Amino acid sequence: MSNNEKNKLSLEPYKGVRDFYPEDMFVQNYIFGVMKMVCEKFGYQEYDASVLEPAELYRAKTGEEIVNEQTYTFKDRGDRDVTLRPEMTPTLARMVAAKKRELSYPLRWYSIPNLFRYEKPQRGRVREHWQLNVDVFGIKTIQAEVEVISIASKIMKTLGLKETDFEIRVNSRKIINYILKELYSLPEEKSYKISKLIDKKEKMSAEEFEKGAKENLGEKTAEFLTLLNSKNFEEFVSHLPNNSSEQEGIKEIKILLENLENLGITNAVFSQTLMRGFDYYTGIVFEVFDKNPENRRSVFGGGRYDDLLDIFGQEKVPAVGFGCGDVIIRDILETYNLLPDYKPETKLAICLLDEKFSADANELAQKIREDGVNVAIDFSSKKLGDQIKSADKQKIPFILCLGENEVKSGKYKVKKLDTGNEMELSVDNIANFVNNK
Amino acid sequence: MSNNEKNKLSLEPYKGVRDFYPEDMFVQNYIFGVMKMVCEKFGYQEYDASVLEPAELYRAKTGEEIVNEQTYTFKDRGDRDVTLRPEMTPTLARMVAAKKRELSYPLRWYSIPNLFRYEKPQRGRVREHWQLNVDVFGIKTIQAEVEVISIASKIMKTLGLKETDFEIRVNSRKIINYILKELYSLPEEKSYKISKLIDKKEKMSAEEFEKGAKENLGEKTAEFLTLLNSKNFEEFVSHLPNNSSEQEGIKEIKILLENLENLGITNAVFSQTLMRGFDYYTGIVFEVFDKNPENRRSVFGGGRYDDLLDIFGQEKVPAVGFGCGDVIIRDILETYNLLPDYKPETKLAICLLDEKFSADANELAQKIREDGVNVAIDFSSKKLGDQIKSADKQKIPFILCLGENEVKSGKYKVKKLDTGNEMELSVDNIANFVNNK
Repeated sequence: MSNNEKNKLSLEPYKGVRDFYPEDMFVQNYIFGVMKMVCEKFGYQEYDASVLEPAELYRAKTGEEIVNEQTYTFKDRGDRDVTLRPEMTPTLARMVAAKKRELSYPLRWYSIPNLFRYEKPQRGRVREHWQLNVDVFGIKTIQAEVEVISIASKIMKTLGLKETDFEIRVNSRKIINYILKELYSLPEEKSYKISKLIDKKEKMSAEEFEKGAKENLGEKTAEFLTLLNSKNFEEFVSHLPNNSSEQEGIKEIKILLENLENLGITNAVFSQTLMRGFDYYTGIVFEVFDKNPENRRSVFGGGRYDDLLDIFGQEKVPAVGFGCGDVIIRDILETYNLLPDYKPETKLAICLLDEKFSADANELAQKIREDGVNVAIDFSSKKLGDQIKSADKQKIPFILCLGENEVKSGKYKVKKLDTGNEMELSVDNIANFVNNK
Repeated sequence: MSNNEKNKLSLEPYKGVRDFYPEDMFVQNYIFGVMKMVCEKFGYQEYDASVLEPAELYRAKTGEEIVNEQTYTFKDRGDRDVTLRPEMTPTLARMVAAKKRELSYPLRWYSIPNLFRYEKPQRGRVREHWQLNVDVFGIKTIQAEVEVISIASKIMKTLGLKETDFEIRVNSRKIINYILKELYSLPEEKSYKISKLIDKKEKMSAEEFEKGAKENLGEKTAEFLTLLNSKNFEEFVSHLPNNSSEQEGIKEIKILLENLENLGITNAVFSQTLMRGFDYYTGIVFEVFDKNPENRRSVFGGGRYDDLLDIFGQEKVPAVGFGCGDVIIRDILETYNLLPDYKPETKLAICLLDEKFSADANELAQKIREDGVNVAIDFSSKKLGDQIKSADKQKIPFILCLGENEVKSGKYKVKKLDTGNEMELSVDNIANFVNNK
């Protein structure tokens, strides 16, 4: 290889993906740790799969065009089309379908996979991100929704957010279907167009929206806009015929909000314009919405998708789930100043007055490690002052300097770097001092 | 989509990769947990990066042919060559090189990335595997090797293996270079060929090996074969000229074995034929070798690679590291009957006598979860007996059946499924009972 080629070798990661240095990994592990802890609290079990999937898994539900344009799809040498998974739900559905009869229900699963999308990198929209996926199979009642929304809420609160910082928006696909198909007697195609229009409402002007609505709703447009502009659930229901309170979607929202309130979740609100794009939702849809005035955005999103196993030619299984990405969570922690302070797992650095004490340092460290302390030894052969500076820079809280005196006496001075506190200790007392200070 | 297409959608994962159902994930998390715990004990910090890397990162050191034939490499829509990383070391070198001046040394890093190789799937040779990577930068002395070998040994022992089950083979590239270049005065090219030949010794007959040796060594062949057949380090050294004991490679092996023995690692042996393929090793190489007579194989492998940052046109940094795959570790745990029994994180299942107690179950579970117990509620609407069977099948150790009586009295019978032990408790005492039984 020529020198010229050498110099071209880039130090950057691939476009749109991230390196995780230990301080980044610390934040990532903190976020994932909270997610895992909360999911397991609710009886969810972790699963995983490869990032590689046959491309047809996505073509089935997402369509050829999106697979070709928005995913990483390539041919392997066996001429198979392979995709780097853009979402976890199809993989989950495949795994559940494959062992449908052996598995126990309610089946509660979570995973934190990395997902790939081929898009222009920008703030919050990287090409690779990690996404918590929480799903429960086998619960027909609204309790599945109550549970996964409780998990979403608990994650936000465990990360340090207050209920006033965010809201949980809920809607039901059944309500919009009821209005469009039953009340307005719209044909399937027009209903679908209206649903899509509502999903994009935030991204267009009021005029554009009204124009789109009129094309499909005709004279019902004004009535429909009044409905969509209702301030809350009660007002929304009051615009519907009297017997609507018996309608399934309406009843579900009522029970859902009541149940959440019972569990101390007081920031859930009905949102008649919430659609959550994906075609596979069949009932309740919801999202966790960050209310920060400078950065209003959706954080988690999910809903009920009872028909998904259909793509494998299998009978339906009731299913509810949501996803939540690592990038948005990290953004929110920054916005609300909730990022945890970096602390390395290493608690004690042993600095050497001379290389010749290396073997002594290894033996000493071995004993302290057995007592449960993570110990790093500075074998860099640098000056003692530089070794201490290095420990401090790495934020290792305690140091111990090892020389002739210490080796001979078996007494070691252990110092806490931030306070300067120092204790002379025998080896058996070091773990105790480090763990309790 | 037609029914015909539907039926074709496969339930299998992509060829050569694995799905991790919760029971598989449990084993994976157990193995990774041991790896992480031991690495952190020795002061190592976790890092990570994307599985996508620019293809040129591998072409630099591995060569065009291997990248094209043995890796997943494809063009993205921006006409960049992208590779799914086949090993972590080039990524690690890139990350260290990118922040070389900001980082503190000794730099101790570990990661458990997934790696991809395009090969024929077979036992122990899947297309995607996870590999622990442990590396230390900035230590010139043999203490770096002492430390990483101690980590490898500690992982094996923590997984339950005895010192007699495996051995740690060590060699130094400096010794073979000394013999071939200094003692035999072979030119660079012939030395290289002999090194490659030794690396493949186990895979060829004695005749083939001797033929290959003769082609490059001529009349020195017999002397060389005697050396290679030495039974131990002392015998090996005795075949060398008297002043060889001052040779750097020889001295290093001596110090390394002494230091390991000092730390209670008594299964390290000198292995003059150990080469560890990769061209980037510059000093000590080592491997952990499973001695099981039915399945003798290398488990961990690593060594010193002081020159790797060179590919980024940067000055050298002393570096030592090793890698260890998840598939081989799982195999070994099976061979030695050391796989942990599956235990779900969920400790208590609440079964419902009737759906109408759902809200009560949620409130009860909320309190028990706050006390630190992971609780799953059976909202399946199945018969009570089936709910209990389902909890048992999922290996959830405790159950609580909730009906009219329990809701009214605030007293709950909690039962341990394996022993049948049952206690009537108020909500505040449930966590205590579950955690201590």
